[in-house]
Amino acid sequence: MKETYYLGADIGGTTVKLAVISDNGEINKKWEIPTNIENSGESIPSDIHQAFEKALDELHIEKEQIAGIGAGAPGFVDTETGYIFEAVNIGWKDFDFGKKLSDMAGLPVWVDNDANLAALGENWLGAGKGSQNLIAITLGTGVGGGIIANGGILNGANGTAAEIGHMTVIPEGGAPCNCGKTGCLETETSATGIVRKASNMLKKYPDTSMSSLIEAGNLTAKDVFRAASEDDQAAKEVLEDVFEVLGRAIANLAIAINPEKIVIGGGVSQAGDQLLKPLEAVYRKYALRRTEEATSFGIAELGNDAGVIGGAFLVKKNQ
Amino acid sequence: MKETYYLGADIGGTTVKLAVISDNGEINKKWEIPTNIENSGESIPSDIHQAFEKALDELHIEKEQIAGIGAGAPGFVDTETGYIFEAVNIGWKDFDFGKKLSDMAGLPVWVDNDANLAALGENWLGAGKGSQNLIAITLGTGVGGGIIANGGILNGANGTAAEIGHMTVIPEGGAPCNCGKTGCLETETSATGIVRKASNMLKKYPDTSMSSLIEAGNLTAKDVFRAASEDDQAAKEVLEDVFEVLGRAIANLAIAINPEKIVIGGGVSQAGDQLLKPLEAVYRKYALRRTEEATSFGIAELGNDAGVIGGAFLVKKNQ
Repeated sequence: MKETYYLGADIGGTTVKLAVISDNGEINKKWEIPTNIENSGESIPSDIHQAFEKALDELHIEKEQIAGIGAGAPGFVDTETGYIFEAVNIGWKDFDFGKKLSDMAGLPVWVDNDANLAALGENWLGAGKGSQNLIAITLGTGVGGGIIANGGILNGANGTAAEIGHMTVIPEGGAPCNCGKTGCLETETSATGIVRKASNMLKKYPDTSMSSLIEAGNLTAKDVFRAASEDDQAAKEVLEDVFEVLGRAIANLAIAINPEKIVIGGGVSQAGDQLLKPLEAVYRKYALRRTEEATSFGIAELGNDAGVIGGAFLVKKNQ
Repeated sequence: MKETYYLGADIGGTTVKLAVISDNGEINKKWEIPTNIENSGESIPSDIHQAFEKALDELHIEKEQIAGIGAGAPGFVDTETGYIFEAVNIGWKDFDFGKKLSDMAGLPVWVDNDANLAALGENWLGAGKGSQNLIAITLGTGVGGGIIANGGILNGANGTAAEIGHMTVIPEGGAPCNCGKTGCLETETSATGIVRKASNMLKKYPDTSMSSLIEAGNLTAKDVFRAASEDDQAAKEVLEDVFEVLGRAIANLAIAINPEKIVIGGGVSQAGDQLLKPLEAVYRKYALRRTEEATSFGIAELGNDAGVIGGAFLVKKNQ
C-alpha cells in the first residue's frame, strides 16, 4: 500500500506556511508563499491549491495518497464547514474558505483557528505529545490558547473556545484590551503587556537598567527578562506580577479541564526556565492538589512549524 | 424489537437513588434505598444489584433489554474502569466499584462523579437539552460543576475536571476552603458562603432584617434572598457581591469552553430569576462579546432526578 500524506496550511497576515507531512509525522516538504490580501484575500484558496499541486508534482506524490488538507487561520471559524466568520488580518469576512479550497483541490478540507492548530501540532509531535487533555498557551504580542479535552480540540458553540487571552484577571481598573473589555489576561501577560508594565516602572525605579530602552521606546519583553536575570528590581517586580496573574489564570482553567500537560509557546516562552519554573510554582499554589499532581509543564517545541503540523494532524484525526 | 432500558444509580451519603429509564427518556420506576456505609461501604454494589433485580422482575423487563448501568458517586472516579479513588462520604477509598457491580449484574457499568452525572441528566432531558457545549453549576452547601464539550462530559487526567467550586476568586485573604486553599468560588458563592457573608454584615448593618436569624444561628441562603427582595441593604450587598464573583468566574470558564448553555442548579437556584437575571448581566459584562452571544442561561429542571437520568444517559451514550 502506498504511503498516506497530509497537507497542512497555516495562513497568516503576511505569509501562508505550507507542508506535506507523512503519516508517521515526517515533514517531506515545508515552504511559504506570500498571503495575497488584495480583494479581501479572495485568491488565497487558489494560491494554496496551486502551491500544493506543484509540490506534489515535484515530490512524485499521487493525489490518491493525500488524505486531505488541514488549514488554520487567525479568526473565528465554523469547524464543521470550514466557513470563516471573520479573520481581520487577512480581510476575510463570511468567507467560505473550506468549501472553495475543497472544490478546487478535490480533497476534503478541515479548518480551525491558528491557535488551536498550534495546540494540535504540539499534541501530535511536540511538547504535548499524546496528551488527551492539554492546555496550550501562546505568549506573544497577544495571548492565545488551544485546549484539547477527551483527545479532541475544543471549538465551542461558535468558535471562541480557548480564547484564553480574554479571561478577566483585573476586574477593576485594568488596562483596555483590543476586544473592548479591560483587564484581560492578554493585557497583563503578553509581550506587549510586559513592556507596558515595565515602562510604567520608570517612575518608581528611575535608575532601572531598562531606563534608556524605555525612554527610547525600544524596550522588548526579552529585555525585561534579561534585566530581571541581572537582578534589576523593576524588572523582577514586573515578572513576579506576570507569573502570579498567569499562574492563577492557568490554575483556574486547569480546574475546568484537569490537563496532564500545559504547554507554553510564543516569543515570551523563549525565556525558558526563567518563565516556566516560577509560573509552575504559582500554578501549583492555586490549583487543587489532585489537579496539579496530574499536570506537567513544558515549553512548546515546534516553533513556527506547530501550525502546519497541527493542520496535518487535524486531517489524520478526521480521516 | 423489544424496548431498551437503562439503569441509573445516584449514590449519596444517606441514600442511593435508583431508576429504570427507557430509551425515549421515560422513567419507568424511580426509588431509593439506604446507603449502607458500614464496612467502608462494601455492601453497596450488591445492595444496588439486588434492588435492580427485584425491580426488573416487578416490571417484567428481561435482562437482555438492559443496555447497562450508569452510576454516580460523590468523589474522584476513574471513568475508564469505574474505579473509585476516593468518595469520603461513603467511605470508599481505592474501591473497584464498577467491576464489582458489573461482575454481579452481568451488565456493562459506567461510573462518573455525581456532579458530572447531574450535568449529563440536564443535557439529556432538562435545561441543557441537546447542548453540545454546556456548563452546569450546582450551588448548594458547596459549589459543584459538570462540563460537556464536543458532546462529551469532561473528566480530565485524573477525574478532577469541572471542579468549578475550587477556582480561586479571592487571591488574597479569602475564606478557608475544605480543599485546603483559600478564596475558592465555593467559599464565596455556596449557600454556606452566602450565610457567612450575610452574618458578617451584622456589624455594618446592625438593623438588618436578618439580625435575629443571624444571632440565633438559623440564617439560610433562602432568608438572604427573601431579605434582599424586601430591600434589606445588607442582603442586597451580599448578593450583589455573590453575583459579581460568580458571574465573572462563569465568564472566565466560558472563555475556555464557549458553551451554548449555562445551567444553574442546587438549593440556591430555587431563587430563580432573582439569581439568574443579575448573574447573567454580570456574565455578559465579562465574557467576550462573541462568546456571550452564543450563550443562554437556565435553571436546572430535573432536581433530585438529574443524577439517575444522567446515569441512564451515560449508558445510552456509551452503548
